[in-house]
Amino acid sequence: MSGKYTIGLDFGTNSVRALVVDVRDGHELGEGVSQYARGNHGVILDGNDPHLARQHPADYLAGIVASVSLALKQTTSAKQFSAKDVIGIGVDTTGSTPLPVDASGRALALLPKFESNPNGMAWLWKDHTSHQEAEDITSAAAKMRPQFLAKCGGRYSSEWFWAKILHCAKVAPEVSAAAASWVEFADWVPAVLSGTTDLGRLRRGVCAAGHKAFYNASWGGYPDEQFLGALHPELARIRRSLPDRAYTVGEAAGALSAEWASKLGLPEGIPIAVGAFDAHLGAVGAGIGPGALVKVMGTSTCDIMVSQMSKSLADVPGLCGIVCESVLPGYFGLEAGQSAVGDIFNWFVNSIQPGGANVGTHEALTSQAERLKPGQSGLLSLDWHNGNRTILVDQRLTGMVLGLTLHSTPAEIYRALVEATAFGSRVIVERLEEYGVPVERVINCGGIAARNPMVMQIYADVLNRPIAIARSLQTCALGSAIAAAVVAGKERGGYSDFASAITAMSGVQPRIFKPDPNHASIYQRLFRLYRQVHDAFGIAGHKADISNVMKDLLAIRDDVVRA
Amino acid sequence: MSGKYTIGLDFGTNSVRALVVDVRDGHELGEGVSQYARGNHGVILDGNDPHLARQHPADYLAGIVASVSLALKQTTSAKQFSAKDVIGIGVDTTGSTPLPVDASGRALALLPKFESNPNGMAWLWKDHTSHQEAEDITSAAAKMRPQFLAKCGGRYSSEWFWAKILHCAKVAPEVSAAAASWVEFADWVPAVLSGTTDLGRLRRGVCAAGHKAFYNASWGGYPDEQFLGALHPELARIRRSLPDRAYTVGEAAGALSAEWASKLGLPEGIPIAVGAFDAHLGAVGAGIGPGALVKVMGTSTCDIMVSQMSKSLADVPGLCGIVCESVLPGYFGLEAGQSAVGDIFNWFVNSIQPGGANVGTHEALTSQAERLKPGQSGLLSLDWHNGNRTILVDQRLTGMVLGLTLHSTPAEIYRALVEATAFGSRVIVERLEEYGVPVERVINCGGIAARNPMVMQIYADVLNRPIAIARSLQTCALGSAIAAAVVAGKERGGYSDFASAITAMSGVQPRIFKPDPNHASIYQRLFRLYRQVHDAFGIAGHKADISNVMKDLLAIRDDVVRA
Repeated sequence: MSGKYTIGLDFGTNSVRALVVDVRDGHELGEGVSQYARGNHGVILDGNDPHLARQHPADYLAGIVASVSLALKQTTSAKQFSAKDVIGIGVDTTGSTPLPVDASGRALALLPKFESNPNGMAWLWKDHTSHQEAEDITSAAAKMRPQFLAKCGGRYSSEWFWAKILHCAKVAPEVSAAAASWVEFADWVPAVLSGTTDLGRLRRGVCAAGHKAFYNASWGGYPDEQFLGALHPELARIRRSLPDRAYTVGEAAGALSAEWASKLGLPEGIPIAVGAFDAHLGAVGAGIGPGALVKVMGTSTCDIMVSQMSKSLADVPGLCGIVCESVLPGYFGLEAGQSAVGDIFNWFVNSIQPGGANVGTHEALTSQAERLKPGQSGLLSLDWHNGNRTILVDQRLTGMVLGLTLHSTPAEIYRALVEATAFGSRVIVERLEEYGVPVERVINCGGIAARNPMVMQIYADVLNRPIAIARSLQTCALGSAIAAAVVAGKERGGYSDFASAITAMSGVQPRIFKPDPNHASIYQRLFRLYRQVHDAFGIAGHKADISNVMKDLLAIRDDVVRA
Repeated sequence: MSGKYTIGLDFGTNSVRALVVDVRDGHELGEGVSQYARGNHGVILDGNDPHLARQHPADYLAGIVASVSLALKQTTSAKQFSAKDVIGIGVDTTGSTPLPVDASGRALALLPKFESNPNGMAWLWKDHTSHQEAEDITSAAAKMRPQFLAKCGGRYSSEWFWAKILHCAKVAPEVSAAAASWVEFADWVPAVLSGTTDLGRLRRGVCAAGHKAFYNASWGGYPDEQFLGALHPELARIRRSLPDRAYTVGEAAGALSAEWASKLGLPEGIPIAVGAFDAHLGAVGAGIGPGALVKVMGTSTCDIMVSQMSKSLADVPGLCGIVCESVLPGYFGLEAGQSAVGDIFNWFVNSIQPGGANVGTHEALTSQAERLKPGQSGLLSLDWHNGNRTILVDQRLTGMVLGLTLHSTPAEIYRALVEATAFGSRVIVERLEEYGVPVERVINCGGIAARNPMVMQIYADVLNRPIAIARSLQTCALGSAIAAAVVAGKERGGYSDFASAITAMSGVQPRIFKPDPNHASIYQRLFRLYRQVHDAFGIAGHKADISNVMKDLLAIRDDVVRA
C-alpha cells in the first residue's frame, strides 16, 4: 500500500511553516519555512505607537507558495512520496488576528487603495492598540451580557476580534466602511486556498469565534446586534455579515481550488480543514486527550485541555476561554496561558545581558542555574513582564524580583525567572482542578520544551507531576496535518476521528521528567509565597499581610543550605 | 604666625587614612593611606561562615605608622609645615568593632596564643555571626529594660558590642576567659597612642558606648549587671571591667606617648582626642550643626543629626540611636542609616554586570540613566539588599525590583536602585521630622557625593530639599582633625569649641543641587508607592491592599511619557 500524506500549514508571528506528514505514523517527510517579507521580522510596526503590530496578507500568500515548495522539495529523499498522494491540508495561525475583507472575501490590503494602510492589513494578535476598546467591551458586557464574560475569564482582551474592529471603526472610518466583514487569519487562509469568493459561504472556525469573538451556541452564536450596536453601529453591521454557525477543525472549509492546486503542485479538490489557532492544533499535534494538559511553550505559553461535553463544566474564573469543540469535536476546549515565558528569559539574556554577551547566554546561565538547589537563592519572582493572561487576565501587571541581596547572581535570577513561570503554570493547574478539570498528565511542546531540560525539571518539581515532551518539534504544523487527515476521512486513506488520528500520528519522547520529592516539597513552600505575592499585587482590593515573605524566603534558603 | 596642624586618623573597613590639616582653614596638606595587610582587602573571612568578618589589631598598628609617614611626606611641598607644629591627633574608626584585651589593655590577638584565632581579633562592624545573640538581647531588654531599646530603635543589632561579646562567650570560651575586657576599636587606638596600660584609665567614647553598648547616663551608664548577668555570667563580668562614665570627642583620651611620638615623628605629649565612629566625625568634617542632616554616603550610608540638649527630644522609633553628646558636646547625637547604598550600585555593576563589563560601568549606566525622566521606567525598587537599618531595624529584609517589563533596560534598573536609596533616605527624614527634629539642610559627603551628580540630583528631587556637598573628600579624617584641634584648645593654637572649629575648618562646595519642582512632584507620587511596598514587606502584621502599585506605576509612566 502506498503512503498517504497531509500538509500542515503553520502561520507563526514571523514566518509560515509547511510540514509534509505521513498519515500512517506521523513521520515528517518534508518541512519548509518562509519568513514574511515585510516589516520587522514580518511585523509591521509604528515608531509612534508601540502598541501597533500588523501584517500584510500578501506576505501570507507568498509564504504559502514558498514554504510548501520547500517542504515538497525535501520529500524527494523519501522514495515512495508523490505529491498526488497528498490527501488534505490543515491550517493553523496566530490569533486573534482579524483582517478586513471586501464582499468577495478579498483582504482590503490586497486592493491598491489600502495596500500601504496598516489599518487595512491583518491586526496581529499582539497588536494592543485596542486596549481602551477592550475595556469598553468588558464594561458593556458586564452590564448587558455577563454570560459572555463568564466564558472568557471575566475580561475581554485588547488582542481580540471585536476590540480591534471597534478600534478601527474609531481611528480609520474609511477602512471600516470598506470592510464588508472581518475574517480571522485562521479562517481566511482556508477560504483563499479553496477559492471561496462568497462571504456567506466562508466557513469560520469555532476556535477563533469561540475564544475571541464571544461566539457560543448557547446564546445563538456570535453576540447579538443589540449588544454590539450599543458599542458602535459598525459592530452591528459586521455582525450581520457573520454566519449563524461556526465549524470545527474536523470539518472541511472547502476543497483546494484549481488555481492553488497549480500554484502548489498538489491535487485539486483535496479537502482543506477548517483553520484554528496554532496552540490549539499544537495541542492536537502533542497528543491532547481527556486529562492531558498540553503546554505549548515558546515566547509566551498556551495551555490547552479538553473536557468531554457529556460532562457538565462550570465556568472557570480567569480562564481565557472555554469553547465547545474549539480543539476537538465532542469536547470542550479550554485555553489558558501565560503572556510571557521564553520572552522573560530572552529579556534577561538579551536586554539585561548579565555578565556580558559571552557569559550571559542561555546555555551559560542554565549550566550555572541547574547547579542551584530549589530555594537556595532566596529569590522569588513574578512572571508578569508582559502582564498576566491566566488567571488574573490583566495586561497592566508587571514583573518583579524579590529577595535580592548583595550576593545575588545572574544565574540565581535566571533560575528565579524560570521558577516564576513554573509557579504561574501551577496557578493555572490549580485553578483548573479546583473547577473540576483534573490534570492527569502534562505534555510540553514548543522550543523551550525541546531545548532546555533544566526548565522541564523545574516544571516537573513545581507542578509535582511527571512532564512528557511531545515527540515532534513542530506540533502545530503536525496538528494541522492531523486535522487534514481527519477531514480527508478514512475513504481517502485518512482517519474517521481525532482519537485514532492522534494515536497514530503523534506521541511523546522516551524521556519523562519526574518530580524529585525533596525539590517538590521546597517548591511547595516557595509556591505558597509566590501565591501570596501574586494575590497581593494582582487581585484588586485584596488586603493581606505579606510581611512574612522575605523572612520565609530566607528561612527556606537557610534550610536548604543546611540540608 | 606659623601654622598649627592636627592629624586625623580615619580607620575604614579596608585601610587607614592619615590627614594632616591646617587648623586655621582646614586646608589638607598631606594624606596617607595604608591598606591593612591581612585577609581579603583587610578583612579576615571564614569560607564556612559568610557572617564572619574580623580584623587583626596588628594591621591597625602598622597602618598608623605607614599612613602617618605617607601623609607627613606629602606635607614637604607646603613650605611652612613642620611636624613640631602638630598640636593634636583625632581618631575615628568603624564600629561597633570591639576587640578583647588583657588586663593591660593589650589586644589578645597581639599575644602569641591568640594571634591566629579570629575570635581573639577585632570583630568588625559587619560581622554578623551574633544574630541569634542580638535577638536574645532584644528579647531580654524588651522584658527587663524596655528603656534600653527605646534609645536604639527598638532592636539590638548583631553588629553591636554586647551581641559580639555574648557570641564569643558561647563559641570561644578560651578567648572569653582570657579577655579582661572588650574595647571598641575607636577607644583602643587612642589608648595605644597614649600608652595607656591601665584598663581603669582607658577612656571610652560616648559615641560607641551610647550607640552600640546601651550606655546612657539616665540609667547610670552601661547596662546593669543584673540585666547582663541574666543573659550570660560573662557579660556581667565584662560589665565590671567597664568605667562609670564615657567621654566626648571634645575631651582628650591621653597624650602621645614617647614611644609613639618617636615612631611617628610627632611631638610627645600632644593630646589624642577621644575616638568616635567614622560617620560621626565625618559629620563634624562635613559641617554638622543644628538643623543639618549630614549623610555620609558610601557602600552604606550613615545619617547624622544633632539636637540641642536644652530642648527635650522624644525617642524616635526605628532610629539606630539617640545619644547625649555622641557627636558634639552639648547636643544629642542622632544616628540613622541605610545598610547598603553604594553597595547596591556596586552589586549591580560588579555582580550582575549588565551589558557586559565594558558597557555596564557606573559611568556608562549613569550617563544613560540621567537621560531618563523620573517615573519613565515604571520601575520601583526596595533598597534592602543588605537589610534595613532605619526605620525598620531588620537585617532579614531583602531587595526588590518591581515593574519589570520585557522592555526594561539596565540603565532603568540602575536608576531605580538609586531612587530606592533616595526613597529610603526620605523615610528617615520624615521619621526625624515627625518626632520633632526638623531637617533644614542636607549636606552629603563620602565617595558617592563627590563622584556622582546624577545621584545627588535624584536625592534633591526625592527629598525635595537642596543638597550641599561637603568641600572635603575626607570628612571623617577631617572631623578627627577638627576634634584634635578642639582638644588641643585655644592655648595651643586650636579652638575652644566645636562651633568655631567647624566654621573655620569645614565647608561645602559651591554647587548646590536644587530640587526640580516637576521631578519632585513625580517623586512624591512614586514615594507614596515606595512607602506602601516598604510597609507591606517590612512591618510585621501590616495588612494592606497593594494591588494599586503596579497600575499606579504604569499610570505615572504614561503621564511622564505624555508630558
